[in-house]
Amino acid sequence: MVLRFMPFSYSHFEISDRSTLRLATLPDFLLQRIDRDLTVPVNRQIYQVVREAILSQVLPVGMKLPSSRDLANELNMSRNTVMHAYEQLIAEGYLETRSGSGTFIADTVPDQIANAAKNSPVSSSGKEKSMLSERGAKLIRHAGVCELQWGAFMPGVPDVTMFPNKIWARLQNKVWRRSRAHLLTYDNGGGYMPLREAIAEYLRAARSVNCTAEQVMITTGIHQSIDLVAKLLGENGNKAWVENPCYWGTRSVLQSQGIEPVPIQVDQEGMQLLAPDLRNPPRFIFVTPSHQYPLGVVMSLSRRRMLLEYAAANDAWIIEDDYDSEFRYGSRPLASLQGMDTHDRVLYMGTFSKTMFPGLRIGFLVVPEGLSKAFATGLSELYRGGQISTQAVLTDFIKEGYFTSYIRRMRVVYAERLRLLTEAIKGNFGDAIIITGSDAGLHLALKLPDGCEDYLISEQAMKAGIIARPLSRYYMNPETAVHGLLLGYGCVPDEEIGPAFDKLAKIIKASIRKNI
Amino acid sequence: MVLRFMPFSYSHFEISDRSTLRLATLPDFLLQRIDRDLTVPVNRQIYQVVREAILSQVLPVGMKLPSSRDLANELNMSRNTVMHAYEQLIAEGYLETRSGSGTFIADTVPDQIANAAKNSPVSSSGKEKSMLSERGAKLIRHAGVCELQWGAFMPGVPDVTMFPNKIWARLQNKVWRRSRAHLLTYDNGGGYMPLREAIAEYLRAARSVNCTAEQVMITTGIHQSIDLVAKLLGENGNKAWVENPCYWGTRSVLQSQGIEPVPIQVDQEGMQLLAPDLRNPPRFIFVTPSHQYPLGVVMSLSRRRMLLEYAAANDAWIIEDDYDSEFRYGSRPLASLQGMDTHDRVLYMGTFSKTMFPGLRIGFLVVPEGLSKAFATGLSELYRGGQISTQAVLTDFIKEGYFTSYIRRMRVVYAERLRLLTEAIKGNFGDAIIITGSDAGLHLALKLPDGCEDYLISEQAMKAGIIARPLSRYYMNPETAVHGLLLGYGCVPDEEIGPAFDKLAKIIKASIRKNI
Repeated sequence: MVLRFMPFSYSHFEISDRSTLRLATLPDFLLQRIDRDLTVPVNRQIYQVVREAILSQVLPVGMKLPSSRDLANELNMSRNTVMHAYEQLIAEGYLETRSGSGTFIADTVPDQIANAAKNSPVSSSGKEKSMLSERGAKLIRHAGVCELQWGAFMPGVPDVTMFPNKIWARLQNKVWRRSRAHLLTYDNGGGYMPLREAIAEYLRAARSVNCTAEQVMITTGIHQSIDLVAKLLGENGNKAWVENPCYWGTRSVLQSQGIEPVPIQVDQEGMQLLAPDLRNPPRFIFVTPSHQYPLGVVMSLSRRRMLLEYAAANDAWIIEDDYDSEFRYGSRPLASLQGMDTHDRVLYMGTFSKTMFPGLRIGFLVVPEGLSKAFATGLSELYRGGQISTQAVLTDFIKEGYFTSYIRRMRVVYAERLRLLTEAIKGNFGDAIIITGSDAGLHLALKLPDGCEDYLISEQAMKAGIIARPLSRYYMNPETAVHGLLLGYGCVPDEEIGPAFDKLAKIIKASIRKNI
Repeated sequence: MVLRFMPFSYSHFEISDRSTLRLATLPDFLLQRIDRDLTVPVNRQIYQVVREAILSQVLPVGMKLPSSRDLANELNMSRNTVMHAYEQLIAEGYLETRSGSGTFIADTVPDQIANAAKNSPVSSSGKEKSMLSERGAKLIRHAGVCELQWGAFMPGVPDVTMFPNKIWARLQNKVWRRSRAHLLTYDNGGGYMPLREAIAEYLRAARSVNCTAEQVMITTGIHQSIDLVAKLLGENGNKAWVENPCYWGTRSVLQSQGIEPVPIQVDQEGMQLLAPDLRNPPRFIFVTPSHQYPLGVVMSLSRRRMLLEYAAANDAWIIEDDYDSEFRYGSRPLASLQGMDTHDRVLYMGTFSKTMFPGLRIGFLVVPEGLSKAFATGLSELYRGGQISTQAVLTDFIKEGYFTSYIRRMRVVYAERLRLLTEAIKGNFGDAIIITGSDAGLHLALKLPDGCEDYLISEQAMKAGIIARPLSRYYMNPETAVHGLLLGYGCVPDEEIGPAFDKLAKIIKASIRKNI
């Protein structure tokens, strides 16, 4: 038995002999294994050796140990040292004292169990996949999360280096100086009320969302919002329409909840609603109406109305993910779907990951009035909400006007980066490559010519240090997927955009040539 | 149609007439509904009224609108005002321009959908329960989370008012001054490595946990750790043994994952392992060996060994929740179950909620070596980890020695509070009421005499402003539950303990008298 990962080396304590020890040999056994030159106290060493010998059954159950005085004499050390070791072993239940008769190795496992254990094959570590459950293995196999989270052209990541750290640190200090108990303990449902109020106010004004503060739930982001919705409104085995292509996270969280994502094709007006699908109403409809992820299409009004009517008629829940709506470069932002809903069928999700910084881990979910109480309870019950102090800092950041001015500032930054990337694309390909979704957000999508395989380009790009996520990975069915590349420009400094794209363009061109 | 929750009152815009408007009456219709004295700009008012009229089909689909010039004349306002409103309505898809022929109300929902919607009963809001899914309703019905999270005698809550805020704020400033991108963006799996290292080191030394930093996953706490385990290692329909009684959160999170908790009775040695249960091996075994929650029993060595052998023989996973092990007042802390495991069947969970403060929302999960990679990926994939900056502050707090000295200091505080509470209990009841679990943690359990119903006492106590959570609520089967009260002393100032308990004692005594 090797004692792995102990803070000091125990390799010379290895117990290879599995035959049981007799009482008389215990002192020798210990002397062979104790090293007085180690920095570890001798009593600790005795404790460790005896413990391991009990666990490996080298010291048999029920065996009487020498008294601490006798053992100390045999080992030629102070009685206190041995007593300390014995006490610890007694406290941990390895040894037991029987009054008047001495110290014994404590009783062991009942025969039935020990035998069962011996006859059964013990699963060895390392075979990671067979250790995971089927749903776990599926999740890991299809994991969409990228190993790198920063650099050209990581989509969905804002430029956190421009975040006003000093202002944040100052507001943080202010909150910590206030230091009241409720800022540091558990939340009792829904989140920090002043933040919920500030978000409600912002959403009403900026996104025409119909809501009161009570309807706003503070979550740790889109993933938790989806998880909560799936748990409170969904049943195992329910179906959810998801846009095809869509954000990988939505799919993964739903599947992990036993909810089956049904891919619905996206066209120029957003999610297509065709008769065969409409005949099988789902429990959930997940949409990104203001800027389809990842293609960037805006859902048309008629499609919006159709969706709302359909959801109301069929008791389906629409989950509107209104990500990126703050960064819009041309037309004015569209009002939310939630604001058009008169049947309380829409749940509206947003996050501060893009407008502030991802590590903040604060998002929100607006639920219909009738669900506010249940969702607030569910949030505490399932996730034991908290981080009220961070929520308080964010509240001040919003209330003192820093939030809107930071968005305004970053909109200009991102617009310029979009311009530089578009210029680089046009410079390399003219109009031969179609760009979509460039009117908003932090990324655009390039559609590749027929025959180009996006994941191959993506792999080569990664070797050259460039992240270019393959569009086909965002589709549920790879055979019918459009091949393209998602290029995020949010976290790429201006001067790196052109050179990075030129590198990528070479890889794309090589792929195009191979297909001619 | 009432425009609820708009930032200003729109009540006089209410559109009661659902018959469609003719073109000629549009200017009148608008004039009746626009108020120039409002602080809302007139163009915004026009936009709102037209939008609502379209949504409620008062303005019929396909109808041609007057030109902006004509309408401006009719309304006696500048053409720019009307144009602004039209532009917004066009941008949002409510109106469309057909070149050369003017501006029209955009097309509407296809007949099939509209008809389906008309014929179907629309669910009204307010009927909260019927809106939730079965599993959601069950979760909310059985929610264990307490409305109050602070005060005498809230269990499981540490005294956050004693936390060294100034030190924390100083370390926070230091981290924010460093301000590197990776501190603010998404985590790419497992958490901030220096924190994982610090935790691994701490667990090896203090809890005899066998682990490297790579095996340590940073989660947001016990709830997320359980959720992750259930998703990656569990299948819908799997069974999990849970101690009876146990922490309500474990049960709720498991159930929300489709995993059925099977209650296993707890005796003086911890979870009982009886033949009928042993014949049906579960997928998971959830235990709190070092201090059973909520009874405080320590699991015996023989029970530990039996559990480990059984799990290895039957491919079950043991999930060891080692909460509260830092606050131990008498005997020395027991080593972890994980440290005794030679078959890689134990996952070890812990949290900083009690040792630091709940709002920190940082916990950890130690997984067997072979699962490290899958768990790190799963963590990013499912929750999009982050808050690296907070993890960095905690790392410094640990490394600079503040963590252990804070624990040491609080151990003395809590020991004194435990003494005061025990004194108050003895003073009121002598030995007539049994106290359990008082050798560690932040709470103790009082067993009530037969006939006393703990939830009734709890309700009355709540009216008197005292939290006394009923022990029976922690059992899966209320009929066979032991009645008692969980009394947390962690967050109660010394001087409030006696008086608060005296109040509670009166309620308990009245209940006892009623039962004689």
